[in-house]
This record gives sequence, structure tokens and C-alpha cells, in this order.
Amino acid sequence: MENIDFNSVLKKIKPTEEENEKVKSLSNRLISAINEIAKENNIDAEAVLVGSVAKGTWLSGKADVDIFIKFPLCTSEEDLKECGLFLGNRCIEKMQGKYELRYASHPYVTGFIEGFEIDFVPCYIIKSAEELKSAVDRTILHTEYVRKNLKENQKDEVLLLKKFMESIHTYSAEFKVSGFSGYLCELLVIYYGSFLDVLKAAAEKWSPNYKIDLENYGTGELFNEPLVVIDPTDKNRNVAAALKLQKMSEFIVASRNFLNNPKKDYFFEKNIDLNLDEIKNEFKTRDTKTFLIRFKPPEIPADALYPQIKKTENSVKGVLEREDFRIFNTDSWTDEKDDVLILLEMEVWKLPKVKKHLGPFVWSKSHQERFADKYGSKAYIEEDRWTAEIERKHKDVKSFLNNILNETKIGFLKFGKHIKAEILNQYEIVDILEFLESEEVNNDILLFFYEYLNKNVYLWR
Amino acid sequence: MENIDFNSVLKKIKPTEEENEKVKSLSNRLISAINEIAKENNIDAEAVLVGSVAKGTWLSGKADVDIFIKFPLCTSEEDLKECGLFLGNRCIEKMQGKYELRYASHPYVTGFIEGFEIDFVPCYIIKSAEELKSAVDRTILHTEYVRKNLKENQKDEVLLLKKFMESIHTYSAEFKVSGFSGYLCELLVIYYGSFLDVLKAAAEKWSPNYKIDLENYGTGELFNEPLVVIDPTDKNRNVAAALKLQKMSEFIVASRNFLNNPKKDYFFEKNIDLNLDEIKNEFKTRDTKTFLIRFKPPEIPADALYPQIKKTENSVKGVLEREDFRIFNTDSWTDEKDDVLILLEMEVWKLPKVKKHLGPFVWSKSHQERFADKYGSKAYIEEDRWTAEIERKHKDVKSFLNNILNETKIGFLKFGKHIKAEILNQYEIVDILEFLESEEVNNDILLFFYEYLNKNVYLWR
Repeated sequence: MENIDFNSVLKKIKPTEEENEKVKSLSNRLISAINEIAKENNIDAEAVLVGSVAKGTWLSGKADVDIFIKFPLCTSEEDLKECGLFLGNRCIEKMQGKYELRYASHPYVTGFIEGFEIDFVPCYIIKSAEELKSAVDRTILHTEYVRKNLKENQKDEVLLLKKFMESIHTYSAEFKVSGFSGYLCELLVIYYGSFLDVLKAAAEKWSPNYKIDLENYGTGELFNEPLVVIDPTDKNRNVAAALKLQKMSEFIVASRNFLNNPKKDYFFEKNIDLNLDEIKNEFKTRDTKTFLIRFKPPEIPADALYPQIKKTENSVKGVLEREDFRIFNTDSWTDEKDDVLILLEMEVWKLPKVKKHLGPFVWSKSHQERFADKYGSKAYIEEDRWTAEIERKHKDVKSFLNNILNETKIGFLKFGKHIKAEILNQYEIVDILEFLESEEVNNDILLFFYEYLNKNVYLWR
Repeated sequence: MENIDFNSVLKKIKPTEEENEKVKSLSNRLISAINEIAKENNIDAEAVLVGSVAKGTWLSGKADVDIFIKFPLCTSEEDLKECGLFLGNRCIEKMQGKYELRYASHPYVTGFIEGFEIDFVPCYIIKSAEELKSAVDRTILHTEYVRKNLKENQKDEVLLLKKFMESIHTYSAEFKVSGFSGYLCELLVIYYGSFLDVLKAAAEKWSPNYKIDLENYGTGELFNEPLVVIDPTDKNRNVAAALKLQKMSEFIVASRNFLNNPKKDYFFEKNIDLNLDEIKNEFKTRDTKTFLIRFKPPEIPADALYPQIKKTENSVKGVLEREDFRIFNTDSWTDEKDDVLILLEMEVWKLPKVKKHLGPFVWSKSHQERFADKYGSKAYIEEDRWTAEIERKHKDVKSFLNNILNETKIGFLKFGKHIKAEILNQYEIVDILEFLESEEVNNDILLFFYEYLNKNVYLWR
């Protein structure tokens, strides 16, 4: 590992002294402002800095300034919300910023001040997870735990790990990625000691349902997710609950790749040359048939949109397979604003007219009589089961999809209700080769296709 | 059930007084002849009539005269064989018949005398199944049991059951049919009392692994076949061992059909109008693709040929499915002499160039490295498993079949060795629509195709 100069990497990803000062100074001014406004208005509340800035584990250019406004546990939820938003708004006004109301488990306000995006989140003062009133309250416990347990020299290790995760596309617990959260990265460094030790453990030791229990709570049995990291601030919570098996596997493989052949490139986004003709050609030579279901995304937050799209993708896949079509792979993409694409690459997209329809077992006298009556000479016995040869209504995928994506039949599909409304409103099904000829293709979509065709592209440098 | 005149059925299927006399007289003369020849030659043996003629359960026109030549248990196998065949041959000579040597579990001789086909089978004198030396020895115990337990008035019931079974194509334990043997029909009548009671029990009570234990041996747990009828002469044998689930189901369904709407037609072979154009048209409109693998049968006995063909059919089916082709149905046929046809009706017979190849799980470090090295950029991760997109060598069924039916690859298929030799020697793969245009189609083959398209044809009248 001697051949990689981590310092030169850190030089690029770690905030400069100046950047650091700027963020710290802003944070302090915001906290003073909030506390002052609270005092002036006789509100029993206190502002505190949380998150990666408070922990000293933020990447250069990515300072998320999170200001939590703490209220005593006896405060009613209504007062908490009202006073919290009031304090946030007044502070933003005072600092001459712009503001926007947002929702997590309860509402918060986001301000845009001096070029930073700052969240003002009302929460309760709690001492342990037992007192939790809402999910955001945890953040304070997490911040405290990391500040107490992450050694000064380990902060750089966290930066390396976060940046590595980011460039191999496994960073973020958001549904879009379903990877490792910042807090999870911090805990891994606390547990294993350093960036390299985390990678070595992943490469050598991790297996499905691998368990890490920093505080020896012994509650690992409660969890069956791919990776279990018991929250040191709450023995009944798995910090890695949002991590999908896919992303855990990708991190393991990228770790091995890095350890085998370490390169600085692993800490920086991979450059990809997008070439429309190459992509078109690759889809052509695969000899499969790829369709896109295309519609406008409903206006819901990204963290609600992605699971609904994934659910739709999986539901369409299931329905096609039940109808005997065969799927090679599927994927989905959205710009979160104008466009959703569900990609269906088909191995079998046309079927014969005749179709087998399984019926009851012959042992069940009453069932079999109904079946035999219904299907007459089309019914026969296979081993001990009634079977009928019936006529398939939709012999190709496109006609079948158009048939189920209409008001009377869409109930078979398990969509989020917002997506259902959008699809009923308007959708189109296009062959990817046609689509690639159209004006509608932009670089983001092309990148989606490229990543679909080159699924492992980020795991190597 | 009043509306069916079983007597008029029996009139047609029961041997006439004259036919009966003829068979009885011939049998008696044969037995006397054998016993006389034995005496003349100082052979300690005694002839006895067994089988349906001895039991009075034979159908008109189908007298199988089975003469067993019994030897004391102390006789060596060599002597048994030598003396048995000698006695049979001399008897046939004396009666001016023709003879043919055959094999079951040991050799026997068949004579053609006065228009009848008579088997002369050497066997041991045994008193119970424990003394069994060969499978044929059982026949004497079976004959004795039926003579003792089948009431005089139940003989007609057996005739009705056998004829019903025959005309719905579930009669015979031979591999070609894999249905109910004559002995099994007799036991069912002894157990249930009458033809109608057997049908009622099948229609109402039978279920998978249904057990009938006439002598209350309590050994039913030993058997897991679809139907278990413990041999009253051997508690460790299931008389219905050869019965396939398919044929048991067909009998159940035909029984229900008959009981719902009894007709005399159920006792006579169904007339089928074969129409080449209709058959051709039906295959065409199904829109599937049907191939025939055609070759000459090896020269082996029918009871060895059919299982080998079935094994070949199943093996080809399995290999095609593993290769991602999808089968709608398969079947096979032989005239036992010049022609074997394996019919493969395909739902998917063409596939894209790209193919998924599953590799090791990512947890296995060493395996994954070999896989990733081998497939390079074609390898990616699906959940926690390595997968590669590779090129399919054979994109259509015919090319794939031709590829595996050659000397180096045929080892993948599990054939009987005789079939393997024949296929390597010569085979052809033809589209059924082409075949139906050719001169090669005869009525037997056409009937096979008709039955394939109308699988339930015999179960209704």
C-alpha cells in the first residue's frame, strides 16, 4: 500500500483552512442568532450544530450545515413545530437569506445564506434513544457519539472512505443509491480503525448478514439485513438497514480491486465518454428487444419517488414473467422532474397463440368438473393436474403492456398511487433503438443507458 | 345406473361357450402333453394353466394361454431352463405348432398352435412369496389367490373393468401404457365388489398415494407410488407399482365421466377420423414450432425400448430448457421396428445472442477473482452474485440439437446406450409441417399426432 500517497488525495478532498473557517464562522453566527431570537421571544430553545460539519468529517465543497433547534421534552409537538419554524425563518431573514419549507418526519426550514444551504430542524432534547420522539432527534445522539469516539487522526480516514464510496457509487443511504450513509462510514472507521482496515475487512471478512456491534449490545439477532451495524446510540436499530445487498457487494468488490491495485483514481469520479452510436450499436448487437416505458414523474419528494418507480419496475417485470414473456434485465431512471424511464430488456418478447392454463388437481372432484365444463375439449390432464390449451390474447410485449396499463387493468400492477395516476394520464412505450434516434435523448439518459450496459464500470480504475 | 344394459355389453366382450370350450380343450390337451412328455423323459415337472384363462377373466378374442411348467425348488436353474424349454418345444412339435424363444426374467418358449399364442414358462413350485426364485414364480400365487377369492359372479365385473380400462387406454402394466395390469383389475373387483364400485371409489375416494391392503398386512408405509395395492401374496410388493400418476388420473376422470353419463361406448374402442389436413392446420394455427427427432429404433424388446425412448425425450427436454429454450410439450412414438419419433413442440425456439452466465457469489474471494479475470468487462454483480453476459453459440433449437447430437457432446444427454448408438448412426430433425407434407406419414403416425393434439380424447364418449 506504500505506492499510494493519501496525503495528496486528502489535499484535494479535505476542506481548506479558509473553507473551514468560513463554515465555522457562519455556523457560529447562525447559532448565536437563533439563540438571541429565542431569548427575545421568550422561547425555551437552544440551537446546536450537528452533522458532518459538527463532526469535522465533511468533504470539501460539500458542507451541509445542519442547525438543530432543541426544545425541552415537555414541549407540545405543535409548539415545537410552530416555534421551530418561527426561529428558523426569523434567523434566515436576519441573515438576508432565502427560505424553503421542507418535510422529513416533521417540517423543517431550509435557508440559502452566503452560498450555503442550511437546514434548521426543530427537535427535542433527549439523553438516550428511549426518549426519542421523532427520527430527527437521533441526529444529536449520533453527532455526540462520533465526536466522543472518532479520534482526531481518524477524521481523514472518514474523508477517504466517504470519497471512495462516492466515486464507486455506493455512498448515500438515500433510496436512489441505497448505499452507505455518512454516519455508517464514521462508525466503520471507529470500529476498524482506518480507511484501509475498513476495506480489508470488507474484502476478506464480510459475508451476508455480517454483524458489527460496537457497544456489545448483543442484539444482532434482531436483524436480517445484508449488513448489520448496531447503532451505538440505540441497540434496537441497524445503522445499515438501508444498505442493499447489491451495494454491499459492490463495495466489497471495489475494496478488493483497490487493495489489489491501489490508485488515486479511486477517489475521483470516473470519466466516461458517452457515444450515442456505440450505445445504439451495443443494444442492436445484443439481439434482445429493449422497450422503454416513459412517463412524467409525479410531484413527490425524491425519497418517495425512487421507491415508487422501483416498485413499478418490479411489478411490470413480475406481470410480464407471469404472462410467459422472459426478461433479460430491467432498470429505471428519472431526472426527478420531467421524465421517468423504465427499461425492459426482453429475451422473449413474442409468444405463440396457444398457451397453457393450469387448472385444479384431478383429486378435487368439484373443481375439476367446473374446469372441464369451462374448457371442454381444450382441457386435458398433465400428471394429476388439469390443464387447458387456451388462446393467448397478447402475443407481443408491447400489445400486452398497452393492455394492462389502462384504467380497468392497472390494478394488477403494484404501483405507488402517484405513479398510477401519472401513467393513466400519459405514457409511451418505445423501442430503445427508435428512442435513440429521437431528439429526446440527453446526456443524463445516455449515461443511464451506458451504465446499464456497463454495470461494473465504477468498481475498477 | 339403470339406463345401461351391462348384459348387452358382456354379450360382446365375454367369450362364447364355444370359444371357451375351444380354449379349455386346447389347454387341457397341452397340459396332458407336457406331463406325458415329462414322464416319458423322467423329468420331475408338472404343467399348470395360469393367467386370465385359468382365472376365467379373459376377454373374447384375447385368450392368452399361459402354461407354467413347475419344477421342485431343489432343481438347479440350469436344469430348469434346459428341461423347461425342452418340454415346451417337444409339446409344440407334438401339437404341430411353430415356436419362438423369448425372455422375461428367464427364457421361455412361445408356441403358435391352432390359432392361439401359447407361452410355456418354466418355474419353481413355491408356496409363498418368501420362496420366490424369479418374478415369474409369482404368477402361480396370483392365479391361486384370484381363483380362491374372486366370486363366480365377479368374473363378469372383471371383464367390464378390463374392457373399460382398455377403451380409455389405461389397461396394461407394460411400459408403453404404464397403466393397470389384469391382476390389479381383479384385485380391485375383489376389494370393492363390482365394476361400478371400483369406478365409484376411484371417482370419489382416490387421492395421491392411496392405499389398498386386502390382507391387512399394514405394510402400506413402504410404498410411495401414486396408487398402492399391496400384493395379497407378498406384503412387500405393490401390485400398482408400474401405474403412472398420469394413467391413474385418467382412470379417475374417465370413471367420473362414465358415472355422470354412462354409455355403452365406454366399453369399445373410440372411432377416430384421421384427417391429415386438419392435423396440419392445427399445428399451424398453434403458432408454436414443432420439431421431430427421427431415428431407427435399436433391436431390443419393446419393454426395454419404450423406457429408453422416454428417457431420451426427457433428457433432450431438460437440455433444451437448461439452454433457455422453452418447451410447450413433448411426446414420443415408435412402431417398435423402423421408426422412432420424438416430438418437441417449442414455445421459444429462437434466442438472442446475449446470454446470462451465473458465476460465484461475491463472498467467495478466490472464485470471484477467477471469474472476473475470465469475463473481464462482461462480468458484473447481480445482488451478491457474479454474472457475465456471454455470447450464445446456438441461437435456434435445430442448430443446438444438431450440435449436441454428435459423438463428442452426446454424453450430456442421458440416453439408453442402444438409442445413443442408433442416433449417432443416423437421425434427422424435421419440422412437423414439412414432415406432414412428406410421403413418410402413415396412419399410425397420424394417430400419434392426433392423440398429441387431443390428449383427453379417450376419456369421454
